Amino acid sequence: MRHPGCWKMLTVAMCMALLGCLQAQELRGHVSVILLGATGDLARKYLWQGLFQLYLDEAGKDYSFSFHGAALTSTKQGQAFIAKVLESLSCPEDVAPDRCAELKGQFQRLSAYRHLATSEDYMALSKDIEAQVQHGGLREAGRIFYFSVPPFAYADIARNINSSCRPGPGAWLRVVLEKPFGHDHLSAQQLATELGGFFREEEMYRVDHYLGKQAVAQILPFRDQNRKALDGLWSRHHVERVEIIMKETVDAEGRTSFYEEYGVIRDVLQNHLTEVLTLVAMELPHNISSSESVLQHKLRAFRALRGLQKGSAVLGQYQAYSEQVRREQQKPDSFRSLTPTFAGVLVHMDNLRWEGVPFILMSGKALDERVGYVRILFRNQAYCVQNDEHWVADQSQCLPRQIVFYIGHGELGSPAVLVSRNLFRPSLPSESWKGLGARPGLRLFGRPLSDFYAYRPVREQDAYSVLISRIFHGRKDSFVTTENLLASWGFWTPLLDSLAHEVPRLYPGGAENGHLLDFEFSGAQLYFSQRQPERLVPGPGPAPMPSGFQVLKAKYRESPLISAWPEELIAKLADDIEATAVRAVRRFGTFHLALSGGSSPVPLFQQLATRHYGFPWAHTHLWLVDERCVPLWDPESNFQHLQTHLLQHVRVPYYNIHPMPVHLHQRLCAEEDQGAQTYASEISALVANSSFDLVLLGMGADGHTASLFPQSPSGLDGEQLVVLTESPSRPFQRMSLSLPLINRARKVAVLVMGRVKREITMLVSRVGHEPKKWPISGVLPSSGQLVWYMDYEAFLG
Amino acid sequence: MRHPGCWKMLTVAMCMALLGCLQAQELRGHVSVILLGATGDLARKYLWQGLFQLYLDEAGKDYSFSFHGAALTSTKQGQAFIAKVLESLSCPEDVAPDRCAELKGQFQRLSAYRHLATSEDYMALSKDIEAQVQHGGLREAGRIFYFSVPPFAYADIARNINSSCRPGPGAWLRVVLEKPFGHDHLSAQQLATELGGFFREEEMYRVDHYLGKQAVAQILPFRDQNRKALDGLWSRHHVERVEIIMKETVDAEGRTSFYEEYGVIRDVLQNHLTEVLTLVAMELPHNISSSESVLQHKLRAFRALRGLQKGSAVLGQYQAYSEQVRREQQKPDSFRSLTPTFAGVLVHMDNLRWEGVPFILMSGKALDERVGYVRILFRNQAYCVQNDEHWVADQSQCLPRQIVFYIGHGELGSPAVLVSRNLFRPSLPSESWKGLGARPGLRLFGRPLSDFYAYRPVREQDAYSVLISRIFHGRKDSFVTTENLLASWGFWTPLLDSLAHEVPRLYPGGAENGHLLDFEFSGAQLYFSQRQPERLVPGPGPAPMPSGFQVLKAKYRESPLISAWPEELIAKLADDIEATAVRAVRRFGTFHLALSGGSSPVPLFQQLATRHYGFPWAHTHLWLVDERCVPLWDPESNFQHLQTHLLQHVRVPYYNIHPMPVHLHQRLCAEEDQGAQTYASEISALVANSSFDLVLLGMGADGHTASLFPQSPSGLDGEQLVVLTESPSRPFQRMSLSLPLINRARKVAVLVMGRVKREITMLVSRVGHEPKKWPISGVLPSSGQLVWYMDYEAFLG
Repeated sequence: MRHPGCWKMLTVAMCMALLGCLQAQELRGHVSVILLGATGDLARKYLWQGLFQLYLDEAGKDYSFSFHGAALTSTKQGQAFIAKVLESLSCPEDVAPDRCAELKGQFQRLSAYRHLATSEDYMALSKDIEAQVQHGGLREAGRIFYFSVPPFAYADIARNINSSCRPGPGAWLRVVLEKPFGHDHLSAQQLATELGGFFREEEMYRVDHYLGKQAVAQILPFRDQNRKALDGLWSRHHVERVEIIMKETVDAEGRTSFYEEYGVIRDVLQNHLTEVLTLVAMELPHNISSSESVLQHKLRAFRALRGLQKGSAVLGQYQAYSEQVRREQQKPDSFRSLTPTFAGVLVHMDNLRWEGVPFILMSGKALDERVGYVRILFRNQAYCVQNDEHWVADQSQCLPRQIVFYIGHGELGSPAVLVSRNLFRPSLPSESWKGLGARPGLRLFGRPLSDFYAYRPVREQDAYSVLISRIFHGRKDSFVTTENLLASWGFWTPLLDSLAHEVPRLYPGGAENGHLLDFEFSGAQLYFSQRQPERLVPGPGPAPMPSGFQVLKAKYRESPLISAWPEELIAKLADDIEATAVRAVRRFGTFHLALSGGSSPVPLFQQLATRHYGFPWAHTHLWLVDERCVPLWDPESNFQHLQTHLLQHVRVPYYNIHPMPVHLHQRLCAEEDQGAQTYASEISALVANSSFDLVLLGMGADGHTASLFPQSPSGLDGEQLVVLTESPSRPFQRMSLSLPLINRARKVAVLVMGRVKREITMLVSRVGHEPKKWPISGVLPSSGQLVWYMDYEAFLG
Repeated sequence: MRHPGCWKMLTVAMCMALLGCLQAQELRGHVSVILLGATGDLARKYLWQGLFQLYLDEAGKDYSFSFHGAALTSTKQGQAFIAKVLESLSCPEDVAPDRCAELKGQFQRLSAYRHLATSEDYMALSKDIEAQVQHGGLREAGRIFYFSVPPFAYADIARNINSSCRPGPGAWLRVVLEKPFGHDHLSAQQLATELGGFFREEEMYRVDHYLGKQAVAQILPFRDQNRKALDGLWSRHHVERVEIIMKETVDAEGRTSFYEEYGVIRDVLQNHLTEVLTLVAMELPHNISSSESVLQHKLRAFRALRGLQKGSAVLGQYQAYSEQVRREQQKPDSFRSLTPTFAGVLVHMDNLRWEGVPFILMSGKALDERVGYVRILFRNQAYCVQNDEHWVADQSQCLPRQIVFYIGHGELGSPAVLVSRNLFRPSLPSESWKGLGARPGLRLFGRPLSDFYAYRPVREQDAYSVLISRIFHGRKDSFVTTENLLASWGFWTPLLDSLAHEVPRLYPGGAENGHLLDFEFSGAQLYFSQRQPERLVPGPGPAPMPSGFQVLKAKYRESPLISAWPEELIAKLADDIEATAVRAVRRFGTFHLALSGGSSPVPLFQQLATRHYGFPWAHTHLWLVDERCVPLWDPESNFQHLQTHLLQHVRVPYYNIHPMPVHLHQRLCAEEDQGAQTYASEISALVANSSFDLVLLGMGADGHTASLFPQSPSGLDGEQLVVLTESPSRPFQRMSLSLPLINRARKVAVLVMGRVKREITMLVSRVGHEPKKWPISGVLPSSGQLVWYMDYEAFLG
């Protein structure tokens, strides 16, 4: 009877013989794994089992191993703990009990507890490893240090490893880090800088255990193996939405001291869901087995993420949470936590592939079920002629088409990959994924399971086992690099900051949540579908907005004044501009609109871009009221604002757009380049009588308007239509329409918003015509109309 | 006992008395209705009943009536026919039998048959009407001539009415016309011109009976009465698709002589479905009771329709059709009809409200059910946190949200307006629409009826009754004006022309059609979801394209040549440009691309715009190789091509776009304006070494390239980077990069496509360096690469 191992041994022997001719000195490699925090929860639950699995997978091959369970406990206690853990290890299902006992015995002999505290301890460990290697006639291949310890312990351990326990030349060092990796962008950066003082980037393996979940780990291979079918589908032309979801039924009880510091966004979205997002959204590298290439593409996906704003998220908190925090942390009865335990976030990618496709990230505690999944829902681009009763799953393109990476739990109870039968029959590696048996009556994502090609892993593996194997194989793409980590925090931190004082919506928990947490989006805004039933937590929320307030019409400086809350004011101004535009186009064929820079008009631009379908953009000429002397592509440029918030969303012909020529001959606002004169001639040539149909102005807190500043000698009178001016603040140089030109307009609208304008608004209401002191007071169209648009804060304070 | 009519009489009497003070001469108005073709099918089925209804609605009010049933039959036969028809008229349900008999008697007394053939007959009719008016002490209000006759009879009748039967001054004439209104744009125009010789536009009422269907007639009022709720929903931001559907179970048997001439597009889509489309898509006038305003807005909707192409439609024909045509029209056994009995068409609107929203128009005979509807399906922009089992119709925003104008038949069996409960509770006029009772088990559009707010007419009315009333009230917006008719034909005729020789897919008819007719769209292309099972009708389809052809690589003028069929060639060139761009951006941070004008690059632009997600547009500078001396907004401008086919679809920053300055100081290519020098300086300033990363050229049939023409003295050598040149064809003046500048590029690609280039391709392959004779022969980058891209037709002939 021939033992199956013989062949392998024979092959190994032949290889060794062959290699021997080339490299006389080649010895068997030895890998030491040092598990720091070996007696902790994570180690007990997952890591020892993962190391055992590594041993089972790899020990028969080219390496020998030793496992050092390290902690600060006394040697005796530690040894007892380790012995207990090692006894509880389990073998894969297909290993017979005898064989399992034998393997466990081998693993136990290779594993030992070590007390590791001082640098001497580390030095001793290093010596022991070297001795073991030498004694065994081995070559040291590398050392893995797995940090299963709280972050405050990182620095000491890292220093000790770096100074006293690095392997010798030719052997690698890999340190494995567990989250949290900071609390925001700054703290993550500090931590990264600190670690960077001890380790090189390629030595650090930051674990996000989601990347080890089998369904998540399958995303890129799936995209690769089904490249042909997905190539035509994986874009905004076909994808309706992507949902990246992790729902939990448990709450934070017993863990509130951690949770209160983090909340759901830091705990789940910033890491797990974001990692999944990049795997779905990134451009697929030609060769997904190149870690470097995968990581590069992932980083590019981060760069394409559109910035989040307060309106990008909805937050919730299960009702019992504050009480749990009070109890566990001895807080007073009056304490109310603002920490969200539920968040829905709408993410958009600013690239051609994904532009406009909503990526919905959602996670929460105390929900109705435990389940995690990524669902790519495709657009229905079919019309099915027969009545829908007759539709058949694999033939009707009108039934939902979806690809789901089912991460686990839920009604399916295991990881899975699901592809709607009307999409395509996917290819999955048969050694690791097999067909999922029929489950009559089971419906997933609105359809019976039989509507899908469905696959489950041949062997379910814990995420940590998967990741430990990948650490061993140096697959850095399954880990979070410093660049990716900082990119992720860079993406999430502004949102976290803006939500810091937001009061989350309370929810009862479990099935009782009903539709309370359902949310909707419109553009980039996310909001709960149902209005808040009642305010349960009095907190530092925004002041309630008096609804039903009418737009107020009055006079200001003897001209019409329109005042309202900001949203209504902007809506009214946008309506008025459209009406003016429509009239102008009807009468003259074109509409000449001069727009101001600054931040006030941004919501106006957005309003015009998204709500005004009847706007005659094709016949509108856009001019600038003023410009900063910076290149047009500078983020400070008024034109750049206009481009980002308006031009990218509407169809104004190229030649109707008239940026100010502040950047001629590669220099900024040089007198000799005559930019102001050039702009003036352009206006004279295209705008009848140099009389704009509408000029939109703002008013500065110092009474400036356009870029005409108090006490500035230029642009307040005289013949010049366009002038160079000096601002009191950076960038100092400006180009501006002159007051006489502004006053030739058929209509001038002045938009003034915010409490900071209150004082100047009061003051200007009382002064006469004093443009040298208050340039705004010189605005008075000679034969046109002047209208003031002020929000209540600017007008009423 | 007081008779209820007394009050009315009293009121009338008081009014008369009052009016009498103001207008002493005011008499009661009289309206004559002349039904031409009074003995025909349409008249018998609908029109007499409609006239009776008109009488019932209006006779009690301010007018008296007389009804003249006219035809060419003998008076005796005609009278007998009319008597029979009048006997069969029915009253509304709520009229008691006695009262009905009385009303019918009154109507019968006012109705008479007339033989109308010669102009004398018409003159006599006119005299009789005048006599009747005078005799009754009435004032003639107007005459309605209803043309229920075949179109060939129109001209004679129209001439007779115009010359011999117009009412006197102060009374109106309304002529009512029935489709077909021509067969295509030209014939419709001829017919319109002919009728225009007899009648004024406001006198003509072209009937599209769909506009009288109660659900269709409700579209605008519904939009108007629910303005507030719909305002935020009625746009591309919220509407996923619009389906406008008319399915029939009957086939064309017995009517093939008509049908064979028309087919389903002319029979249903060009008129009924297009009218409905405009009602849905048009901007809503402020005042929908103004006919003029409605018609104007409708016409604007026509103007926003994007042109249809062959790929915009799928066609089918039920299998028995050809046999029916052979039988009914004595055609030989070999005869196969190409007339479609089924069509699906994808329509897009080019305006901000609807851009990108698919409007699906579909109609067919021999389908599985009879039903007509307009369905507006809204996008799902919600995420519902609970498992879908728990979703509730009026609370979950994740259930489908739709508004349906159910025109009739189908499972509902009556007209209806349906609004999903999770949208809003609509407002409908309660005097004409009432709630639809529960119908347990009935599902519509994938949902139980109970998911909808559902309304049906209080009183079902035939479309003709509705329209006859509107003719009487002069509501021209319920009819097809000449402008609208021609706009509709202008829209459909190019599609009809391009499909004239298309072989429709055969379908068995009825439920057996299965998924055979289901269709899908991708961009503007429509195609059947299932491949044609086999070619059943051999017909003049397009020549089969040799698929599986590889891209051919060879040499041409000692430089690499890439040759393929057009589609693959363009795909390859686009791929190569993207690869070059990515490399350039990686190395230098920017990519400088100079593009040629002409029609060849258009498919390339489209390819780049829609398929290249990885293209680094944000870092790409676009330059022009040459330009015609026309304003940039001229349709002849190369820049305008670039803008339409590329720039509108990608995000190139404004300041990275470099059109040639052919239009300075409001004049074209004046030497003094130094446009060429300006462009040259811009290139020198921005492009390192004035060496473009890629220049795309074409080759003219005369051997020209860029705008460098044979025997032209300029731009072939020397120092100038940009030159003004003369073309042999209009517009003569051009601006062009010079040959020396082109030859400084890192890469030059020459794209040559089409059979017309075959000769010059042969010739240029043999000539040496003779740029004065063949400017293209001077293209040879000094240190860059030259690649020829030629399709097989240009290269192999």
